[in-house]
Amino acid sequence: MSKGRLEAFSDGVLAIIITIMVLEMKVPHTDSLQSLQPLIPVFISYVLSFIYIGIYWNNHHHMMHAAQHVNGAILWANSLLLFWLSLVPFVTAWMGENHFSTWPVILYGMVLLMAAISYYILAHNLTSLHGKDSLFSRSLGSDQKGKISMLFYVAGIGLSFIHPLLGFGIYVLVAGIWFKPDTRFEKPVEMNDVNGPLEGNTQKKSLPHS
Amino acid sequence: MSKGRLEAFSDGVLAIIITIMVLEMKVPHTDSLQSLQPLIPVFISYVLSFIYIGIYWNNHHHMMHAAQHVNGAILWANSLLLFWLSLVPFVTAWMGENHFSTWPVILYGMVLLMAAISYYILAHNLTSLHGKDSLFSRSLGSDQKGKISMLFYVAGIGLSFIHPLLGFGIYVLVAGIWFKPDTRFEKPVEMNDVNGPLEGNTQKKSLPHS
Amino acid sequence: MSKGRLEAFSDGVLAIIITIMVLEMKVPHTDSLQSLQPLIPVFISYVLSFIYIGIYWNNHHHMMHAAQHVNGAILWANSLLLFWLSLVPFVTAWMGENHFSTWPVILYGMVLLMAAISYYILAHNLTSLHGKDSLFSRSLGSDQKGKISMLFYVAGIGLSFIHPLLGFGIYVLVAGIWFKPDTRFEKPVEMNDVNGPLEGNTQKKSLPHS
Amino acid sequence: MSKGRLEAFSDGVLAIIITIMVLEMKVPHTDSLQSLQPLIPVFISYVLSFIYIGIYWNNHHHMMHAAQHVNGAILWANSLLLFWLSLVPFVTAWMGENHFSTWPVILYGMVLLMAAISYYILAHNLTSLHGKDSLFSRSLGSDQKGKISMLFYVAGIGLSFIHPLLGFGIYVLVAGIWFKPDTRFEKPVEMNDVNGPLEGNTQKKSLPHS
Repeated sequence: MSKGRLEAFSDGVLAIIITIMVLEMKVPHTDSLQSLQPLIPVFISYVLSFIYIGIYWNNHHHMMHAAQHVNGAILWANSLLLFWLSLVPFVTAWMGENHFSTWPVILYGMVLLMAAISYYILAHNLTSLHGKDSLFSRSLGSDQKGKISMLFYVAGIGLSFIHPLLGFGIYVLVAGIWFKPDTRFEKPVEMNDVNGPLEGNTQKKSLPHS
Repeated sequence: MSKGRLEAFSDGVLAIIITIMVLEMKVPHTDSLQSLQPLIPVFISYVLSFIYIGIYWNNHHHMMHAAQHVNGAILWANSLLLFWLSLVPFVTAWMGENHFSTWPVILYGMVLLMAAISYYILAHNLTSLHGKDSLFSRSLGSDQKGKISMLFYVAGIGLSFIHPLLGFGIYVLVAGIWFKPDTRFEKPVEMNDVNGPLEGNTQKKSLPHS
Repeated sequence: MSKGRLEAFSDGVLAIIITIMVLEMKVPHTDSLQSLQPLIPVFISYVLSFIYIGIYWNNHHHMMHAAQHVNGAILWANSLLLFWLSLVPFVTAWMGENHFSTWPVILYGMVLLMAAISYYILAHNLTSLHGKDSLFSRSLGSDQKGKISMLFYVAGIGLSFIHPLLGFGIYVLVAGIWFKPDTRFEKPVEMNDVNGPLEGNTQKKSLPHS
Repeated sequence: MSKGRLEAFSDGVLAIIITIMVLEMKVPHTDSLQSLQPLIPVFISYVLSFIYIGIYWNNHHHMMHAAQHVNGAILWANSLLLFWLSLVPFVTAWMGENHFSTWPVILYGMVLLMAAISYYILAHNLTSLHGKDSLFSRSLGSDQKGKISMLFYVAGIGLSFIHPLLGFGIYVLVAGIWFKPDTRFEKPVEMNDVNGPLEGNTQKKSLPHS
């Protein structure tokens, strides 16, 4: 099964998500600079979500580029990821309009958490399909960043009960961690040159590229 | 005539349909957890439609992947399918906002039925173009699942007059039947290995892969 | 200059236009069958525009498929076409909401006319680039259907001053004329079979394939 | 790293931006010609933004076509460009609804300025990656037009404090400068034929193709 249309469909959905979010920034009916002031939290919320969708697109791009093939389970894991990301415009607007108050920040974090879990499932399914010793799986490694992100989201959700800005701060932090594109999938060839031939490399149990 | 742009255009339309549906979930203006409560039926309605559009994309993906070529009639059958699917956001919102009451559930079922009929016409046109004994047609088989789905939609529409949740339950059931991606088109090569050469296989009237 | 991204961008814009039109069908807040009644003219308006955008996509698909290359002027002619088509959702909603009254029907026709003129300019630019005796230009032919359509739009606009349904009827008629996909670009190879070999055919001054 | 998905994603986002802008033209509820009158400034604003997004798509198309490869920094520079362009529908609607008054025109100019700076960063990153003497960089040249545009935007913003139509006029002027597609990337091969071999061409300090 070819991955081309999965990439194209995901690109389409992510492109639409990242763009329709801006429709939630309602155009003020007066022309003063002050009329923009109520939009500042909506705008901040939009910027964070834009970065998150951008990060997902970047990492999805890299991961699927490294993938050799896909199967039915991967199609559904991908749809699950797109489902949770499709809720980002809703929680972005709710969080922005309510000036980062408790429940909106918690819900925002929960959607991020569910998206991260879906991405983890997608990566896990790709690893299973390609085999543990495949170039793909060795490039993905033990996915520390993915696991840490999930912990941070949980922490952010919990801390939001104390003060929602703590939660929001943690979401910004996680975005910062991921800001640098995922280089694990960037140079598979060079890695092979260093580590020897690709197949039958079973003695290297400690994956060196994680 | 190449099928590439038909796939690209369909991907685009399906990606937009699946994404703009979320715009019907109106962001509440207060920040309490209770303010989300009225959205629960809209959300459930959204989830079901997301799954349906996902299923259509999956099956469309597989069917067009197996197709060798398209013609004008297929372009229009595809447009007819996209037309009915384009109405999904509307009926999804109407059904969700009205808490699965009778007429919205019936209309939702009718749009699903029309989409299923359009998909059937599309598959039928593809079969005609490729020939009854083609790999494509043998992979598609007698399309039991498609025919059963249509019967179920009709039953769901009828049962909605007794109680709309019966109809809704049947739509969920049909989604469950289709949840597993259509594997008929997945391994055409292996099928050939088992069943002998592709062309001139006229003695096998009972298509073995349906 | 490659035509791939022009096709992809046009597909994207057309897919969005055809899909966002449905957002103009405002979901009624009550669940009776009667509550759908005011939407009937909006729906009819939507169906006609869906068919028109579908026709444009089909013909654009065929024409660009036959094109060998594009240049800057063609990029802008294509953008001009997309501009007028981008106004279709607006005039569709205005015409539907106002039950096909005079000015909305006239404006609808004017947008169709401008789109047709833009398409003509696009086709003309492609003919100039490929040469009058090219396979592309011979496939396009004298473009009777395009010229007749423009005349019909003008007639429809004029007749709308007498009664808007006359104008609307003519727009439906033109859609009927174009419903069958443009076959001119479908079978270039067979034309060559009739007219002799492709290369080195220098003695035929009326160049059939150049 | 392949540039294909970056192009596809950018095409998608630009196609959506250019299309959803039309949603800001609210359909009037009456059918008189006069009811369209308040939309005239919104329409003018829409036309200018349509042209700007079209210009960005054209130039992005050409620049990425000439690029051989991309890296992580380029992905982010591209996302930054898309971010600022995603704000165009918002500022377009604000400027149109308020009849080109001071602050909306200033904000519109600032978004154009930020987009131009992002494009400059994107071009700069591509130059760095390909090397100063690469065909790409020599085709891009000294990017006079890009630098002049930024100066003009700054001037337009400043002049808007005197009268906003001065600023608006300058934005129209800049669009006019860019209207002709960027031909620098169009004929790299012919340029080589004239100017000699591509690599090691260090004596030509004054880049001849800028």
